[in-house]
Amino acid sequence: MTAKLKIYLAQINSIVGDLDGNAQKILREFKRANESGCDLAVFPEMTICGYPCEDLWQKKDFVNKCQEKVLEIIKETKDSKCAILLGAPTNDLERKKEVIRNSALLIEQGEIKKIINKKTLPNFGVFDEARYFEPSQILSLVEFRGLTLAILVCEDLWDSRNIFLLREQIFDAAITLNASPYSSRKHEYREQAAKKLGKNLIYVNQIGGQDSLVFDGSSFAMNSQGEIVLQMKEFTEDSAVIEIEKSGEISPSTKHEARSTITERNYQACILGLRDYVRKNEFKKVLLGMSGGIDSALVAAMAVDALGKENVSLYALPSRYSSDESMNDAKKCAENLDVKLEVVSIEPAFESMLFMLRQAQHDVAELTQENLQSRIRGNILMALSNNSGALLLSTGNKSELATGYATLYGDMCGAFNPLKDLYKTQVYELAELKKDVIPQNILTKAPTAELRPNQKDSDSLPDYEILDKILFALIEEKKSIAEIAKNFDENLVKKVAKLLHISEYKRRQSCLGPKISDMAFDKDRRYPVTNKFNQ
Amino acid sequence: MTAKLKIYLAQINSIVGDLDGNAQKILREFKRANESGCDLAVFPEMTICGYPCEDLWQKKDFVNKCQEKVLEIIKETKDSKCAILLGAPTNDLERKKEVIRNSALLIEQGEIKKIINKKTLPNFGVFDEARYFEPSQILSLVEFRGLTLAILVCEDLWDSRNIFLLREQIFDAAITLNASPYSSRKHEYREQAAKKLGKNLIYVNQIGGQDSLVFDGSSFAMNSQGEIVLQMKEFTEDSAVIEIEKSGEISPSTKHEARSTITERNYQACILGLRDYVRKNEFKKVLLGMSGGIDSALVAAMAVDALGKENVSLYALPSRYSSDESMNDAKKCAENLDVKLEVVSIEPAFESMLFMLRQAQHDVAELTQENLQSRIRGNILMALSNNSGALLLSTGNKSELATGYATLYGDMCGAFNPLKDLYKTQVYELAELKKDVIPQNILTKAPTAELRPNQKDSDSLPDYEILDKILFALIEEKKSIAEIAKNFDENLVKKVAKLLHISEYKRRQSCLGPKISDMAFDKDRRYPVTNKFNQ
Repeated sequence: MTAKLKIYLAQINSIVGDLDGNAQKILREFKRANESGCDLAVFPEMTICGYPCEDLWQKKDFVNKCQEKVLEIIKETKDSKCAILLGAPTNDLERKKEVIRNSALLIEQGEIKKIINKKTLPNFGVFDEARYFEPSQILSLVEFRGLTLAILVCEDLWDSRNIFLLREQIFDAAITLNASPYSSRKHEYREQAAKKLGKNLIYVNQIGGQDSLVFDGSSFAMNSQGEIVLQMKEFTEDSAVIEIEKSGEISPSTKHEARSTITERNYQACILGLRDYVRKNEFKKVLLGMSGGIDSALVAAMAVDALGKENVSLYALPSRYSSDESMNDAKKCAENLDVKLEVVSIEPAFESMLFMLRQAQHDVAELTQENLQSRIRGNILMALSNNSGALLLSTGNKSELATGYATLYGDMCGAFNPLKDLYKTQVYELAELKKDVIPQNILTKAPTAELRPNQKDSDSLPDYEILDKILFALIEEKKSIAEIAKNFDENLVKKVAKLLHISEYKRRQSCLGPKISDMAFDKDRRYPVTNKFNQ
Repeated sequence: MTAKLKIYLAQINSIVGDLDGNAQKILREFKRANESGCDLAVFPEMTICGYPCEDLWQKKDFVNKCQEKVLEIIKETKDSKCAILLGAPTNDLERKKEVIRNSALLIEQGEIKKIINKKTLPNFGVFDEARYFEPSQILSLVEFRGLTLAILVCEDLWDSRNIFLLREQIFDAAITLNASPYSSRKHEYREQAAKKLGKNLIYVNQIGGQDSLVFDGSSFAMNSQGEIVLQMKEFTEDSAVIEIEKSGEISPSTKHEARSTITERNYQACILGLRDYVRKNEFKKVLLGMSGGIDSALVAAMAVDALGKENVSLYALPSRYSSDESMNDAKKCAENLDVKLEVVSIEPAFESMLFMLRQAQHDVAELTQENLQSRIRGNILMALSNNSGALLLSTGNKSELATGYATLYGDMCGAFNPLKDLYKTQVYELAELKKDVIPQNILTKAPTAELRPNQKDSDSLPDYEILDKILFALIEEKKSIAEIAKNFDENLVKKVAKLLHISEYKRRQSCLGPKISDMAFDKDRRYPVTNKFNQ
């Protein structure tokens, strides 16, 4: 009889540092795998501790506790037929110096049968693995119940040198454990990488939000012809079973989750990032200020989808410059979401602040007055947050953060900003998905901050259609002004580049938000504040 | 006649991205070296672009512009006798892929005579060089005017494998180009590393502040017996000339700058970090709020030392809870510094805010009221900053930031915080240096935030002597609670560890401040916000 493996793919949501909780999830999924007669349950990279743990990995006690937790799992599962392949940090002595490795552990009947260490450590974009881990010098093939498996950890699949090596080896399937963060087109990149292998492949990815990263799951299996034979869910925990025969192809599965559109995926990523930030930090409720504009309307809709309307509080904080139109739009949106909108006028505080400043100094500049209003709103919203224990959400989009069109300690206040990595034009795209709750007028009117009479965004910034393209060329494509000026007005490009440059200090103090693009602020794009290069 | 080299050590302050300005400095120093008959002028690591440039190094146009600037220097200096050894990024093709290297260029009479690439790329602590550069596989010896020189770039000297290799080579002196950031005991570590080489060594370090890093200069020369024969200045630009004979020892120099005490050095590092942050970002003036406490008094003294009293504005922002004692101390300190103290009571705004909140909600919790006051102060100070173009300085020390004993968007507002990496006990030590201007009562009274009646820091926190030791064990030593509890009360250790843990989100939104310790927040210590591990 030909040897055959029945493999369980466990796409779980580990929480960074929650060793108990993660172990419970592993055991819960293991039980289901074992009961359905599987040979092997496969979990994502760093399953036991979550990913990325950053400098926790440098804490000896942390790595030791991870290993103790793995030993508990081994003990718990020693009498079962099903084996486990899970990710964990391991420590090791190398030239008498302790090193930490990013490992996959193959656990079978009370023993660690094999430790496979990650060979290619990503140290670009949002990744800093060279800071933490010692790389393996080799790739590993493992004999398991009559089949030969190549076991890889995440980046190992993306390194063309590894692919060259593996294509020359004889094995029945590759299994890869991943913590591969979401970006709009990431699934395409993953499939391209997988196709280059030209072998059966089982790809298990973690799901969940972790600070500024969102892991989308989207685990899959591919046969040696590069066909996807199993596609698991996006943005939610999921599991699946797949069979491989010795020298055969991975059996086609009926499980094919539909792939959503980019805009839908981006929306789901924002929701998951928000929900997990709030819940994993042990909060339940959020609040935000509704200006009547599209950004806060979209964040309100996201918050309701992420946490339920009973966990969302909305406030309108009008000033002398707020139009009836804006207040009506804010009210309408709150009504559509079935959430009460509380109104707190900021006039009393604005009056007192102006009075105090005028007493101390002769004049208060227009920009100062604008910032004052924004910061009074921030102060009131933070007071409401302190008073209620609800987290404040910030609503500035990527175009605003890129150009500094946002007030530090004002509208930038907040614990989390779901729009942080969405350009304004993308905000409109996502808002279209929610037009059942976002009033039509919000989608069509001209954007305004309403911090002075008749203000419009277009007074200070070019049209978002153009602005976003220039920003994309500067940020995502890292192009020079000269290159970009081939397609856009040079003075406009210079102006935008300068805004991007001089607002770095604000972004350094901005709150977290989910990475959606290939080049999000913070961990992806690390710029000095003090920097005289602006070309 | 025995060959002999006369070497010029140019300890300059490069500015990140200021290619023109840096080139001018290089040429100015080169001229002095050439005119004094030197054979070689040695500059720090990455002289042409400053260090660290972070993701600017990933911008193709930036690296190209650096190379163009080097070509200009080569052209400018081609007819001179003196050669140049300077640091710059270079690009190269490796397996058809463009890579960037951290290089030392030996320039002589219109030509690049040799490119020496950094072999050991630091990727720990504040360093991320594996993100940017391709390492060299070799160390380089260079024949130069009859002598053999080993040329190293910074971390190359710290890697024991390199030292083993170099100890077996025959050369007359090692020259190392550095961008080695300050920490309290860094010069000791440098000397220890240098002594292991057992050869003549010329160590040229950059000086200057760059965001959260301070480079102290302190360049030196050491003979093969491990004796320091030349010690250059700390925290200021400097130059020196030294001679080496073929197969001889580095000539003793009369130039020996006195080494200051740790406390003096820390003070100087704060001053330089502050001055360079302000000036390199093209500001002149700063302002800050004076509470009458030791932190703001010390920052005021630092600001006057760093920028001159004419560039410092001081404000007292009393509330109903501010004591006469505090206001008197603040006034006295401002008088001593010869800076006017403007007083703006925050009562009108506090009253209006409470009124607005009470209209919207029934009660305003005590903590909410405390934060409100701090945030009104932040708002007023930011308005004064917006109005005047002076940068706001934040004054929270490391003990406060570690425990979250600071209000986000309140006293944490600011562009730069000179005390960010000083524990409270260190603040007292540094304040002792300034007791000519800081009133005695500020040095001796019990610390208080004065946000509620008769509040003292000791109501919420243990004595700073104990707190700082526990924090040091957690942060600097990365010890577990169990280990620390061997020396301190376990419940207290748990409480402090929890405070450190749950205030990570605040630190993520804190402003920059100079690294003083071996483990500063931000780039040195990178912790996740979402993290369930607190043991």
